[in-house]
Amino acid sequence: MAAAVVWRRGAAWLRSCRGKVLRRGGSPETPGVPRARGCAGSREVVPTCERYAVRRLPFGRLADGDVAFFERLLPGRVVTGEEEVKPFNVDWLKSVRGCSQLVLKPQTTAEVSQILRYCHERNLAVSPQGGNTGLVGGSVPVFDEIILSTALMNQIISFDKVSGILVCQAGCVLERLSEYLEEQGFIMPLDLGAKGSCHIGGNVATNAGGLRLLRYGSLRGTVLGLEVSLCCSSAAPVLQVLADGSALDCLTSLRKDNTGYDLKQLFIGSEGTLGVITAVSILCPQKPKAVNVAFLGCQSFAKVLETFTTCRAMLGEILSAYEFMDEKCMELVETHLKLSSPVAGSPFYVLIETSGSNSTHDEEKLNSFLEQAMASGLVTDGTVATDDKKIKVLWSLRERITEALTHEGYVYKYDISLPVGKLYDLVTDMRARLGQSAKNVVGYGHLGDGNLHLNITAESYSHSLLDAIEPFVYEWTARCSGSISAEHGLGFKKRQFIQYSKPREAVVLMQQFKAMLDPKGILNPYKTLPERSTC
Amino acid sequence: MAAAVVWRRGAAWLRSCRGKVLRRGGSPETPGVPRARGCAGSREVVPTCERYAVRRLPFGRLADGDVAFFERLLPGRVVTGEEEVKPFNVDWLKSVRGCSQLVLKPQTTAEVSQILRYCHERNLAVSPQGGNTGLVGGSVPVFDEIILSTALMNQIISFDKVSGILVCQAGCVLERLSEYLEEQGFIMPLDLGAKGSCHIGGNVATNAGGLRLLRYGSLRGTVLGLEVSLCCSSAAPVLQVLADGSALDCLTSLRKDNTGYDLKQLFIGSEGTLGVITAVSILCPQKPKAVNVAFLGCQSFAKVLETFTTCRAMLGEILSAYEFMDEKCMELVETHLKLSSPVAGSPFYVLIETSGSNSTHDEEKLNSFLEQAMASGLVTDGTVATDDKKIKVLWSLRERITEALTHEGYVYKYDISLPVGKLYDLVTDMRARLGQSAKNVVGYGHLGDGNLHLNITAESYSHSLLDAIEPFVYEWTARCSGSISAEHGLGFKKRQFIQYSKPREAVVLMQQFKAMLDPKGILNPYKTLPERSTC
Repeated sequence: MAAAVVWRRGAAWLRSCRGKVLRRGGSPETPGVPRARGCAGSREVVPTCERYAVRRLPFGRLADGDVAFFERLLPGRVVTGEEEVKPFNVDWLKSVRGCSQLVLKPQTTAEVSQILRYCHERNLAVSPQGGNTGLVGGSVPVFDEIILSTALMNQIISFDKVSGILVCQAGCVLERLSEYLEEQGFIMPLDLGAKGSCHIGGNVATNAGGLRLLRYGSLRGTVLGLEVSLCCSSAAPVLQVLADGSALDCLTSLRKDNTGYDLKQLFIGSEGTLGVITAVSILCPQKPKAVNVAFLGCQSFAKVLETFTTCRAMLGEILSAYEFMDEKCMELVETHLKLSSPVAGSPFYVLIETSGSNSTHDEEKLNSFLEQAMASGLVTDGTVATDDKKIKVLWSLRERITEALTHEGYVYKYDISLPVGKLYDLVTDMRARLGQSAKNVVGYGHLGDGNLHLNITAESYSHSLLDAIEPFVYEWTARCSGSISAEHGLGFKKRQFIQYSKPREAVVLMQQFKAMLDPKGILNPYKTLPERSTC
Repeated sequence: MAAAVVWRRGAAWLRSCRGKVLRRGGSPETPGVPRARGCAGSREVVPTCERYAVRRLPFGRLADGDVAFFERLLPGRVVTGEEEVKPFNVDWLKSVRGCSQLVLKPQTTAEVSQILRYCHERNLAVSPQGGNTGLVGGSVPVFDEIILSTALMNQIISFDKVSGILVCQAGCVLERLSEYLEEQGFIMPLDLGAKGSCHIGGNVATNAGGLRLLRYGSLRGTVLGLEVSLCCSSAAPVLQVLADGSALDCLTSLRKDNTGYDLKQLFIGSEGTLGVITAVSILCPQKPKAVNVAFLGCQSFAKVLETFTTCRAMLGEILSAYEFMDEKCMELVETHLKLSSPVAGSPFYVLIETSGSNSTHDEEKLNSFLEQAMASGLVTDGTVATDDKKIKVLWSLRERITEALTHEGYVYKYDISLPVGKLYDLVTDMRARLGQSAKNVVGYGHLGDGNLHLNITAESYSHSLLDAIEPFVYEWTARCSGSISAEHGLGFKKRQFIQYSKPREAVVLMQQFKAMLDPKGILNPYKTLPERSTC
């Protein structure tokens, strides 16, 4: 059952049941358990409004009467008090910090709608929050915005085994949904390192990509329907029908529906700035009967690329992930998390996952590919896992890089889409540019999707290092027609750089949509869209 | 090479190279050749404005000066004269007819933008047209709208073999793109019966589904970027930047891009009512190395469903299509198109396609499934084709049903999304309801996507038959929470029924988007959105 193939270049293939080769002692932690809320120790996080040049917009200030209203609306589900609210004010990276005094925990869409209606009337700003695992400062307030948490909206509404369509509330934790589905022979179409904490509503609001996008495509294809609470709507009389803070019900469970414009798409990836997603309908693939993971060492990035082209051709429809990481990433997960890699001594590592319906066929395909990759010198070293536990161990090397990085101090995170051929050049150029001023410059990511995670670490935040990185990183990306945010969104930290990936006309149109759906701008202010010169 | 498996229930499996069994003589036409422009003979089509209760909106009337302007802008690419314009005025079904006097054939995005700017200033209505293969009267004018044809915008801009991303102009014919890609080892992510005529821009504007959706997902996932010429924009001063009829450039070629709202999604499926798509960037899968098609007979719709569940589980990742048709459909393709089916005597037929990277593996999977399906009595009869020519012959039985139906006279077409379990009940109910007043009531479609094509034929159009069908068909669909248009769009014929699938709030929001992007409403008027009570 616990079949594992361990091999070295030039050595005979060795099929064994000993499991993977561990280079070091220590028992790797199981991935998938909820991530700790931040890992940067007990250092106090500098308030966002002190670190960044941002001015509070003229929203209303929270009054006692407001809190009383919410306590009547959500008895026992209103959080006040500095210490109690603090975990909701600070992001997971401990990089930004708001100063909200109030967290609301609605359970129903009607409650969310009533909150939004009240806040619209009182001109109170709102920061919607799911699992607070975002990486661009989008999920915490910047000033004193009221935090609207979906933590208690965690009910599964329905699951249809014939169609594979799941309908659930927005606050369901991704991993809980995965577990629920696996019992029924299905999986979620997305998976990501933060699965133990992130909410599906937040995933949709961010248009999260993750580890399965290569196989199952983006949420724009798999999300079939949404229910969204709207703040209010345009001042135009015709839209008064929506002005009661009502919900927009696009929670269809159909694979195909071409009746008018696809409104839900506007909310996917809008980071809570246009409405609050309260429920999601999503198409789930069947659980693959066979999963294999190969973890390989490559001697150059050119070989990483060639290995990708080769495996895409040879593995075809069973390829479900192609991830890469550089040796510095490996060093960090080993040092900070005490994980052990079965493959060592390579400048680059590749994780290839196959998922299919026939284990014999899949192993045949994988073995043919590996033989070819070894014979042609594309990879020099590697291991294969076929049982769940070992697969998780291998995945943790890749999935927990983000966590390992936080142990380094302050992390400057960049999530870039580029033509795959140029993916690592940005890391090399950045490393050369920063020299000793950065602690580490590392690159990893979803190579199969052309998505690089470029991370730069330093003991602590510094304006001068940031100035050395930005806008250089965005200019570099724009020159290659890349995207300055592949999957993390723009949130607070990247919003002023949208023009590097979108033309001015597009940004103006986005601002019009925002003005139409949230005329007072109370929904997740200071996020996604750049500050308007008119503000 | 030309391996084919021919078998009958209870008979021994017979592997032969004789090819498929043909029940009748006659050489089936090759599918994929451009479809003739309509098949209903030389009957004059009744003008839309006479058949339907629709009033011309107060747009400007075409003047000599307008034609002179366009002739300067598009020398030699302006079509006038009743006979010359006629093919552009009538839809492929010969069911609706406009009375436009002018067809414009721009070659560049800049020309399209100039046309739209001029028309906006002059308040002249415009009907964008691709291959004119639409089935809901969306692609031809209703009154005298100027026809903006993308026929000459047929250039491939780029194709990247590493990423599989194709960028092309909107007027490229789908089949030409498929041929171009196949030479390079790739395929288009969509395929449909009208491929020989339809334009990719029209496909995107309709959010066409087609035969490969089950495998490669919808255009909302595979379309990576669009370039769209806008008519004008909101009267709000901030949007004056767009008011020159400029193009919105969202023609990115990235797999992932989360920088702001995904504007292109608003244009996908908007049927030319918000802007004119001028170029498309689309992610193309690799050409599968092995394709197999099984054509099976089932004794009941319940068995069609059970066969689907079984094959989805057993074929897994190689299943690329699951189509069904009833015996009446088979009779029509045999009668009108002289096609011959290798499988006969069943009330239902199923076409299953597999696509994979290893022919041995795929055949093994398919054979295991077929053995089980036969052994358990799910299917009673069938044939399998593995070579291109025979595969095309089998596909033509399914793909050419639409064409066969047009030979019957007038066709009332319905394209419904339903929970798969209820898919055929609508056909049965409709047949019982209409009795002798209809010539035929048939059902076929993309069962794997929950998409039924319900077609009702009669010698000629009749108001009373239409009244017997509508709104019954929409009420029935709404009761099952289905969609009244799965993939055809709403166009002219279905727009007044949008409320059966969308809540009022959603329609109001759509109207606001329309007002924002096309304040004078000149773009494809009388389509997609219902007439506003304020009009």
